[in-house]
This record gives sequence, C-alpha cells and structure tokens, in this order.
Amino acid sequence: SVLKSELLNDPAFDFTDDSRQWVDRMLDYNVPGGKLNRGLSVIDSYKLLKEGKELTEDEIFLAGALGWCIEWLQAYFLVLDDIMDNSHTRRGQPCWFKVPKVGMIAVNDGVLLRNHIPRILKKHFREKPYYVDLLDLFNEVEFQTASGQMIDLITTLEGEKDLSKYSLLLHCRIVQYKTAYYSFYLPVACALLMAGENLENHIDVKDILVQMGIYFQVQDDYLDCFGDPETIGKIGTDIEDFKCSWLVVKALERCNEEQKKVLYEHYGKADSADVAKVKALYNDLDLQSVFTEYESKSYQKLTSFIEAHPSKAVQAVLKSFLGKIYKRQK
Amino acid sequence: SVLKSELLNDPAFDFTDDSRQWVDRMLDYNVPGGKLNRGLSVIDSYKLLKEGKELTEDEIFLAGALGWCIEWLQAYFLVLDDIMDNSHTRRGQPCWFKVPKVGMIAVNDGVLLRNHIPRILKKHFREKPYYVDLLDLFNEVEFQTASGQMIDLITTLEGEKDLSKYSLLLHCRIVQYKTAYYSFYLPVACALLMAGENLENHIDVKDILVQMGIYFQVQDDYLDCFGDPETIGKIGTDIEDFKCSWLVVKALERCNEEQKKVLYEHYGKADSADVAKVKALYNDLDLQSVFTEYESKSYQKLTSFIEAHPSKAVQAVLKSFLGKIYKRQK
Ligand SMILES: [Mg+2]
Ligand SMILES: [Mg+2]
Ligand SMILES: [Mg+2]
Ligand SMILES: [Mg+2]
Ligand SMILES: [Mg+2]
Ligand SMILES: [Mg+2]
Repeated sequence: SVLKSELLNDPAFDFTDDSRQWVDRMLDYNVPGGKLNRGLSVIDSYKLLKEGKELTEDEIFLAGALGWCIEWLQAYFLVLDDIMDNSHTRRGQPCWFKVPKVGMIAVNDGVLLRNHIPRILKKHFREKPYYVDLLDLFNEVEFQTASGQMIDLITTLEGEKDLSKYSLLLHCRIVQYKTAYYSFYLPVACALLMAGENLENHIDVKDILVQMGIYFQVQDDYLDCFGDPETIGKIGTDIEDFKCSWLVVKALERCNEEQKKVLYEHYGKADSADVAKVKALYNDLDLQSVFTEYESKSYQKLTSFIEAHPSKAVQAVLKSFLGKIYKRQK
Repeated sequence: SVLKSELLNDPAFDFTDDSRQWVDRMLDYNVPGGKLNRGLSVIDSYKLLKEGKELTEDEIFLAGALGWCIEWLQAYFLVLDDIMDNSHTRRGQPCWFKVPKVGMIAVNDGVLLRNHIPRILKKHFREKPYYVDLLDLFNEVEFQTASGQMIDLITTLEGEKDLSKYSLLLHCRIVQYKTAYYSFYLPVACALLMAGENLENHIDVKDILVQMGIYFQVQDDYLDCFGDPETIGKIGTDIEDFKCSWLVVKALERCNEEQKKVLYEHYGKADSADVAKVKALYNDLDLQSVFTEYESKSYQKLTSFIEAHPSKAVQAVLKSFLGKIYKRQK
C-alpha cells in the first residue's frame, strides 16, 4: 500500500536494508488480517456525514488513511496485549512475539506501530485545519485505552484474584476505556473532524458510541461462553482467565449464598472441571435469558438516544454502527 | 509534584482506587532517580537563550514541565528496554518488570508513561502558538528512538550474530537514532520552541547536537570497558552482549587477520575467559590511545562548529552541553 511504502522510506530515519525488511514483514504480519471494521467505518461515517454528496478521490484517500491509522493502533494494542496475556494465537496465526527470532523485540515493534500513526498524520494532514485536533484525539484515545488495559491487568493479577471487587460498575469501566473509545468513538470522531466539526459539540455522540461499545463488549463476553467456537473463530477462556466478564458480574448479582460459594471456588481456574461448574451455574441462573433481555433493552435505549439526535446525518452514522452489531453471532 | 497529581486526577480517565495507587507507585519507581540531566537542560538552555533576562515563574514552570516530559520519555524507553534486554537492575534497584506482581504489566506501564507526555503537554501548552510543533517534535523524536532501538535489537539478535556487519557507519546510525535525538537534540529543541523559534531554521543546531550525542555514546562505550565500575555505577557487559560498540568497531578496523579471528571467536560470549581475550586484544590494539585522540579531535571539531554559529546565545547553550560531557568519567 501507499502508506506502507511511505513509512518504509520515511526521511526521518535512515533505514538499513535489514531494518527496512524487518518493518516490512512486521507490518504485513500484524496490520492487515483483522476484520477492518474500525478502519472501514471512518469512510462509511464520513460518507453519511456528507449526506450523499459524492466524495472526491482525495477525501476517500484521507478517510482511508485515518481508517488505517485506527488499524495500526489496533495492531499496536494487540501485539502488546498478546505479550502481556502470554497468548499463543491471534487471527489464526501465532502471536507476533511467538514467531521465531521475534520474541521480546515485539515490544519495540508494538511501539513502532504506534509511532507510525503520527508519521501518517503528519504526512497527509499537517496542513489541515483539524490537524492538531486529530493529534489530540489519537493521544486521548490511546491514553484511555492504556488506562482501561491497566485496570484489566491489575484486577486479574495472579495472587490478587478477588471476586468481591467485581461489579457492573467495574465491568463498565474496563470496557469503556479498553475497547469502546478506540473501537467505536474514534472512527466517528475522525470522520467528524474531517467534516469540519468541533468534537466539543458532539459529546452526545461520544456518549452514545461509548454505550454502544459497552453493549458490543457484553455481546463479546456472552459469545465467549455461549457462542459457537466455529463461528467466532476462537475458544473462549474468560472463565479460566478470571476475567471481569459481564456474565460473572450478572451471576454474582443473581446468585444465592450457596451458588456464590461455587463461583468463588471455581472461577478463574484452568481445569475444565472447574470451568464446567461455572458454566452449569450460568445455566442455572438462566443467564442466556438475562442476556437476551439485556440485548433488546440496550437496542431500544440506543435507538431512542439516536433518534433524539438533532442531525439526520449523525443519526444515520450511529444507526449504521448499531445495525452492524445488533444480534451478531460473531 | 504538581504534574504527578494532575495525572492521578486526569478527568479523561475514571480511576479506581487500585489503579490510581498503581500509577502512583509506578511513577515514583521509574520517573525520578536518574541524573535528570536531560530534564534540567531544558531550563538551562532556555535561560541561555533568554540571554540573562530574568525568567518569570510561569516560564520556569513551563520549562520544568518540558524537562519532566523528557524524563517521562526516558523512563518509558528504559522500562521497555530492560524487558527486551532481560536486564536485572537499573539505577541501583531491580528493573520495574522484575518487581513482584509487576512482570509483563510493565509493558503497559511503559505505554502509560509515554501517554502521560501528551497529557502534560495538553494541560499546560494547548494554548501556546508552538503547541503543535511540540507534539510533532516529541512524536518525531520518539519515532527516531524506537527506530534506533530496532536496529540495535536486530543486529544483536541471537543466532544472527555477525561481526562482518559492524562498521563505524552502523555504530553511528544506531547511536544517532537511539540516543542522540532524545538526549541531546530534544531538550534544546524544547527550549527553542519556548523561545518562539522555528525549528526548521535550526537544522545546524540539530546537527551539532546529534554529533555531540554520538561523541557522548562513544564515551559510554569506552567507559563500559575501561571505566571504573565504582564511578560509573555499573559493570559493563557490552562485550558479552555482542554490542555494536565503538570499541569493537575500532578493533575491527585496526586488527590483522589473526586478531580478527580472536574477535570472531570470543566476542559476544558470556564466559569471562572470552571477555578477557577481547579485552586483551583491545589493549594490544591500544584502543585507549585511539579513544584519547578521538576525544580531543571531537572536542576541537565540535568547538569550531559551535563558534561558527551566528548566535551567541545558541553558542552558549551548545558550549554548556559540551562542557558537561567533555572528559567525563561517568
Ligand atoms: Mg488478550
Ligand atoms: Mg489482555
Ligand atoms: Mg472476549
Ligand atoms: Mg538495555
Ligand atoms: Mg537495549
Ligand atoms: Mg553503554
């Protein structure tokens, strides 16, 4: 792609042949291969904001570049997250740090991925009136994501496992920061900036997208346990990993004293007998119905928020996001 | 400090008690404790650029804040570097990732340290005319440092160790990117921006500071082998680590075929007998004298570059940097 070859020939760094090859391979391995949802939604959102006006080639390129920046950001988070979680596979291949000769160099590769974003922004947006807002936006969203990641990491800390700390509030907080800002708010905020909008006038849009991000993550938590591994493409391990999942939070809310003991005893253990006990409890508590009700209530609530928004164009953007995720199976 | 408590109460993130404590401890552990050279030199440089005019309290605070941003940047690089090098101690205490319960969470902590910089800049510099230049500057310097780190990592890659790739050019390239930009150029560039200067008019200052950074790293390489461990506060391991040190590059330049075999056989091995062989060779090749000559030549060259600079104030800044490092023993 154009962006990649610009990065591999960046005048700010005097590449050796070996290092250019390394970055080349690292980008191919880590940046494409996802669903590109986040990236594509910048263009989609921008089109909707333009209310059917034909986009110029230049606009399409720029919206695409911002979409790629989000994919780069995602790659950066995933490369480092896999190291911290000591994961084995990602998107059907070994995690980057598990590749021979990579190892802990992956930490610096993650940092490089992150550093490519301001290089792309500077190259293509330096003269735009919204350049500084774009930098602030990416900085703020990265900060929020890293902060959410931190809460996630310290609540699942070995030796500190403590179910009594788990609540809907904590769940919400982790999810909001770790996922919602960069996956839902960021693409739309990029499109709004390109359309000349001031983000301070769109706090309501941010709130709705963050709510949608939380709903998305609740689905993710649900599918981790009740989804079809074939369809979602991986086998969930949230129970083993002592994750502050929506399911365990709901289970804690609804269980009696006896069931609570079961949870405390078996949650967060690697053994499949322990996992089975937790899953049986989830069934006893009928969490599938609780989820179905949550799903339809969330959908109604989000729809009514969206319809209350003054701009039809913004409504269209938000509805398109919601449509993509409602009742998803993967 | 003010900056720390602002970060611990950043409205962009809704801290839990646990996470606020975590960041608090992480900052105390990693940010202070260095020599603060980089940080202090922003204020020093800014004073000199102001040619004796009394600084306002506000100016002192702002220059100090930029100095702290550089210390934060340094902490970020060091936390991650220690993970990648699997180091044990840093500044006389265990490396952060070696602290119980920290482990790989240190990766995210490094990322958080990095993310604090734009938070500080936004809080205190958002309305300054040079705000966007400051963001660009920190972004560019971080990119260069990460790129230098990459060359360093891939040239010392286990199983790829190849002395025939080592040259003065490669040494220069690693050092320039990995150290010189952020340690030498960045503090002065910050001071120039505060003084209302356009960095594009100061390419010559950048060149001189990068040269000075290279000279500084050659000293570092020299002291790693020939310095007094008591004075420099650590025991050098560049030979064991197969580093592209100035010494090995000079040895390769000056050795005969037989001596070359010694280097190829013993460089980059952990055994102290191997290290001793390499050190003996360095002595045979009289690298101490080669260094002394390099040191005085570099000093002369840098001085004459500095004196050719049109501005007396800029000359004073550069001379002060040079004075601090010339003939340093630690
Ligand atoms: Mg993970
Ligand atoms: Mg994780
Ligand atoms: Mg999940
Ligand atoms: Mg190191
Ligand atoms: Mg290193
Ligand atoms: Mg050294």
